[in-house]
Amino acid sequence: MTKTALIMAGGHGERFWPRSRRDLPKQFLSLTDDGKTLIQLTVERISPLVSPENIYISTNQDYVSLVQEQLPDIPAENILTEPVGRNTAPCIGMGAAFISKKLGDALMLVLPSDHLIKYRQMFLSTLEDACAIAEEASNLVTIGIAPDFPEVGYGYIRFDPSETLLRGYKVLHFTEKPSLELAKEYVSSNEYLWNSGMFVWKTSTILNRFERIMPDVYEGLSIIKDAIGTSAQNSIIEKQFPTFPSISIDYGIMEKSDSIYTIPGTFGWDDVGSWLAMERIRKTNEYGNIIDGNVITVNTKDSIIIGDKKLIACVGLKDLVIVDTEDATLICSRDSTNDIKKVIENLKICNRDSYL
Amino acid sequence: MTKTALIMAGGHGERFWPRSRRDLPKQFLSLTDDGKTLIQLTVERISPLVSPENIYISTNQDYVSLVQEQLPDIPAENILTEPVGRNTAPCIGMGAAFISKKLGDALMLVLPSDHLIKYRQMFLSTLEDACAIAEEASNLVTIGIAPDFPEVGYGYIRFDPSETLLRGYKVLHFTEKPSLELAKEYVSSNEYLWNSGMFVWKTSTILNRFERIMPDVYEGLSIIKDAIGTSAQNSIIEKQFPTFPSISIDYGIMEKSDSIYTIPGTFGWDDVGSWLAMERIRKTNEYGNIIDGNVITVNTKDSIIIGDKKLIACVGLKDLVIVDTEDATLICSRDSTNDIKKVIENLKICNRDSYL
Repeated sequence: MTKTALIMAGGHGERFWPRSRRDLPKQFLSLTDDGKTLIQLTVERISPLVSPENIYISTNQDYVSLVQEQLPDIPAENILTEPVGRNTAPCIGMGAAFISKKLGDALMLVLPSDHLIKYRQMFLSTLEDACAIAEEASNLVTIGIAPDFPEVGYGYIRFDPSETLLRGYKVLHFTEKPSLELAKEYVSSNEYLWNSGMFVWKTSTILNRFERIMPDVYEGLSIIKDAIGTSAQNSIIEKQFPTFPSISIDYGIMEKSDSIYTIPGTFGWDDVGSWLAMERIRKTNEYGNIIDGNVITVNTKDSIIIGDKKLIACVGLKDLVIVDTEDATLICSRDSTNDIKKVIENLKICNRDSYL
Repeated sequence: MTKTALIMAGGHGERFWPRSRRDLPKQFLSLTDDGKTLIQLTVERISPLVSPENIYISTNQDYVSLVQEQLPDIPAENILTEPVGRNTAPCIGMGAAFISKKLGDALMLVLPSDHLIKYRQMFLSTLEDACAIAEEASNLVTIGIAPDFPEVGYGYIRFDPSETLLRGYKVLHFTEKPSLELAKEYVSSNEYLWNSGMFVWKTSTILNRFERIMPDVYEGLSIIKDAIGTSAQNSIIEKQFPTFPSISIDYGIMEKSDSIYTIPGTFGWDDVGSWLAMERIRKTNEYGNIIDGNVITVNTKDSIIIGDKKLIACVGLKDLVIVDTEDATLICSRDSTNDIKKVIENLKICNRDSYL
């Protein structure tokens, strides 16, 4: 069965400010040494499994030109534009409608565009295993991540170690972000995985679930599917899509479904959740620093210093994150990266849009 | 007797980098809230005692246009250009030669151009007292500063509390920068003052001391004095001045002289020795921060943040000095301001002259 991918690239996170902006969100940034952007790496990573004409990018109007610029091999008609943000369930539903319209039933990998994977071969093997499970019957497959530590920022997937299908385990239920205590229990139980937001299924399978669980959305998706490729396509999407509820695929479909399997991923997954991720992505120097750009350091350690053109001179520093851009410089303590959003709130309140 | 002043403005310190540069040293910077530069404040401060035509500015060729721009009321012929730096003794000697050529014997205040004085009336009273002592006989007067704490970065003046002249005390000797232990003894003894580098004497007195103690320099000064106002003035200075030894007035004259008096200054003197001086000069906000320019702070305290045009966003910081300029940003821990010079050394080694 043909393998296709829907890469979700509509997000506009604020955690990489001031490098990320409203008009240049994280997925379009280059954060690794190779100079490629996160979305370019996402497409490149799956190239042995999915050819460019079968890769679909879901995004919003503001980012269409960025997608075209960064991914010139993806056909223009595979760039799906959401007229408004409606979270992942409607996004994935519309992706399934497009793919099934073109190819009939097909395998569909659903992938975020702003994560990193360290061990590509392991990742591709995991996806192939997931495809095998998804192809066998009306199974939904979610790629879990074997947890390294009791992270409280992720949702978890509980699986039944005794009920296997090929290399997958039957999913018992999904959980929301746990307390630290609960997270510790989850990790030591060996029956929980991190919910990475990566899924594999047949288009027929996911559309059937929409039909059963979210019939109103399914009806809208059917109207969109009929219009795909016609002159009315865009106007129909603009009419139907905003009527969909804003809901994630986890809440909207997965938690209400059966026949879900998960495969524990051990391929060096990283959701690149804050500037501190740079320490996992790039090599630190002998003083524990990540340094890029026009930077001079004196007695400075354990810091992330991403310069631009301007000279950044760091003297006697420890545990800081410094990011310089053309019009803004962030200086943030290691423990405070979650508070970068407060700067952005301040900028919004003051209508200082050029910095957003 | 006419009061004159020689303001020494040839220094090019590095402690206020990146705001201070080779072509814009500290004395030409505005660091106070009123927007005036340190040298402008120095001239303004003494205006009740000394009129502009009797104020002489000693500087080097690179700063002549800055002096003219910032002090338009000072006559052009009162700007004395040193062809090379030779420390304060030759500088003061040449100043005395110029003043005595124009006015014969006169009182001469010698003042640094890059210090701040909090209580102007007290300062002026002290200068008047010093003038009275200097005028009475061949006395040298040095303005001491009543020490607040055992500073190890200054030289000290030891005086004899029992031997007074008007409001001055007889100086016993000068000391170099002491150890902390010694500095503590000095402060508790109440017989030591900080050596501020401010002096008062008659031109005849100081020139006589040069004649006696540094006869070679005196000879060169006499040749310069003869040439002042003639077409040969500049060429003679360019020939004579570089032959002078590079030596401070303290080592060259004061330590080898008698009849020195000191007046304990209690006028809120500040040598503005590093960025930390900003906390004494400007008001801190409720979080202990000094903030200037395009700055947003979140959970930031006890820091000095001097912005420029670029947005500086500070998140979760404490005890930092951040100074942004057009082409360079300094981020320095409070305890490391002495290491700013290491950045400058690095820039020099790498021939990155535009940043110096």
